[in-house]
Amino acid sequence: MTDGVEILPVRGIGDVTPGDDLAALILGAAPWVRDGDVLVVTSKVVSKAEGRLVEVPADGPEREAARAQALESETARVVARRGPTVIVQTHHGFVMAAGGIDASNVDKTHLVLLPADPDASARALRAALRARGRDVAVIISDTMGRAWRNGLTDVALGAAGLPALRDHRGEIDPYGNELQLTQMAVADELASAGELVKGKSDQVPVAVVRGIPGVGQDDGVGAATLLRDGASDMFSLGTAEARAAGLRDAATMPETLPGGIVDPQAVDRALVTVAEMIAPGTLVRPAEVLPENGATAGLLVTPPGTSAADLVRLGADAQRLRASLAAEGIASASLPHEDGLLLALSAAGGVR
Amino acid sequence: MTDGVEILPVRGIGDVTPGDDLAALILGAAPWVRDGDVLVVTSKVVSKAEGRLVEVPADGPEREAARAQALESETARVVARRGPTVIVQTHHGFVMAAGGIDASNVDKTHLVLLPADPDASARALRAALRARGRDVAVIISDTMGRAWRNGLTDVALGAAGLPALRDHRGEIDPYGNELQLTQMAVADELASAGELVKGKSDQVPVAVVRGIPGVGQDDGVGAATLLRDGASDMFSLGTAEARAAGLRDAATMPETLPGGIVDPQAVDRALVTVAEMIAPGTLVRPAEVLPENGATAGLLVTPPGTSAADLVRLGADAQRLRASLAAEGIASASLPHEDGLLLALSAAGGVR
Repeated sequence: MTDGVEILPVRGIGDVTPGDDLAALILGAAPWVRDGDVLVVTSKVVSKAEGRLVEVPADGPEREAARAQALESETARVVARRGPTVIVQTHHGFVMAAGGIDASNVDKTHLVLLPADPDASARALRAALRARGRDVAVIISDTMGRAWRNGLTDVALGAAGLPALRDHRGEIDPYGNELQLTQMAVADELASAGELVKGKSDQVPVAVVRGIPGVGQDDGVGAATLLRDGASDMFSLGTAEARAAGLRDAATMPETLPGGIVDPQAVDRALVTVAEMIAPGTLVRPAEVLPENGATAGLLVTPPGTSAADLVRLGADAQRLRASLAAEGIASASLPHEDGLLLALSAAGGVR
Repeated sequence: MTDGVEILPVRGIGDVTPGDDLAALILGAAPWVRDGDVLVVTSKVVSKAEGRLVEVPADGPEREAARAQALESETARVVARRGPTVIVQTHHGFVMAAGGIDASNVDKTHLVLLPADPDASARALRAALRARGRDVAVIISDTMGRAWRNGLTDVALGAAGLPALRDHRGEIDPYGNELQLTQMAVADELASAGELVKGKSDQVPVAVVRGIPGVGQDDGVGAATLLRDGASDMFSLGTAEARAAGLRDAATMPETLPGGIVDPQAVDRALVTVAEMIAPGTLVRPAEVLPENGATAGLLVTPPGTSAADLVRLGADAQRLRASLAAEGIASASLPHEDGLLLALSAAGGVR
């Protein structure tokens, strides 16, 4: 740990334009920067220096169209949408409203994109500062929203010269418990700390954090390590989008069985879910199935009659039941049966 | 803005036990605390002082059962579950892994719960510090995971004496643009800044942040204002859970029509989604519907034949189509028709 940390604003950097030498501007404004400091640099001035600007009309529908086009080119996938808010994952992997494209702190005929590779930007700025005699770490920061919590915080888009994560796993607390959690996203915490002395009007685009141990020789792996990959992200889609995907899953359910053992309680839950929706008089009961094709359980659905309407309704009801089973992680296939419809079941890896 | 911020660790507080006077312990260890400081206090020492402990067996299945019971009593709803990880919303409204229940930094026969009302805890601690002659702000912090990003950060569970949000809306940047975004979650940023000088072993349970403007007379609304309500949260459920909910939506689709005008392009998308799944030879075409019951468009589904199997399949295919339409925000109702099945449609407020 540390004896204390200072966070110092860097004022007087002024307007940054494409081609500017950011290291020179920073040290011109803050000649007091010293070895071991962490410089938290607002991504916007990095983008401006790197010329990551898009020319757009100052107003009107053409401006909106140009803005939509810029968003599309920055977007790898749409994560969630509600009204005018679009949250996307950028090609970098950041999940941000409007892809991090910003129209503030720039003249009305330009939009500012995120740096193309913020870790590379951090490394380059760090190298330029070292060339001017200062051995520091660099964090490129931006403002992001979060799930579940109101308000925005600054996080690290790029980092060089210190580990973005601090790992406490395996440490023992004073009671002898091994710490479980606990990779701390220290680069994000530094970005947030830096924001405390910065404004939103970019007159203080750089904060210096002094007293952080671990500013190293190596650039390190950068802030990309803070990006959660899709496979480990439990919130890769907005709730409404995932729910719509579930409806599409129901629309396109295959009639194939992965072969897992079915939990009878899950079947019971699925039956309870649809009980009110199925034609009165319909019987649903456990049935023997041949284990071929992966079936490990079966349900026989018998309609109350054999009119054309009864049969159409049987098909619809069986499909409701199949969707309800799928919600419990159970795949199904429909087989003809003299008493109605036989659903062959097996546990799926699908939705659960 | 500020001339700079200092973050100072408070060491030597030692073990905290139920009934301890936290204000006395803090000022005993840090007599240098002064008016205007922000004290970031790890929630665990607040919980311990308040006796928010649950006795549990030191090991074995009984320990796991007691732990599960504690989690259940802290949980308002389960947000997401994957393997051993359970993310819940607590009765306070926090979305946290394991409901914020912690087994570290406490002896093996106890679990530590979150403070019952962290804003009240912050106000009480602030009042106790003021009674001892220090006019400060207090933040109760804890470590949380985030969607989309690896690593944990500290955030504010409770706050008193400063605004948890800093509002920049309506401010004008140097280019004349009105700032849009931008309520900053300053209490969370302070919690993260405090974490930079704290350890994970609770030997530094308090950080003092000095130089933050806005430490006020009033306690303010507290950190509860940082909790996003369900209605405005686009990520109120894990993706897998929301997808399963979508499957249940398909299983329980009502046959009622809210009456909105149907977008023909949305119908086309819905048809494309299920095209491969529907019995070969089935015809789906636009059809007139009576505007009674809210229908604003119609689709006639005609099966390739009239055998019992054709009719069962017609019912299933129509249900697939209805789920696909629902994914596009279109509600439907099935009506008998001499040529098959007529789906009456209208736009829904449902999933979109």
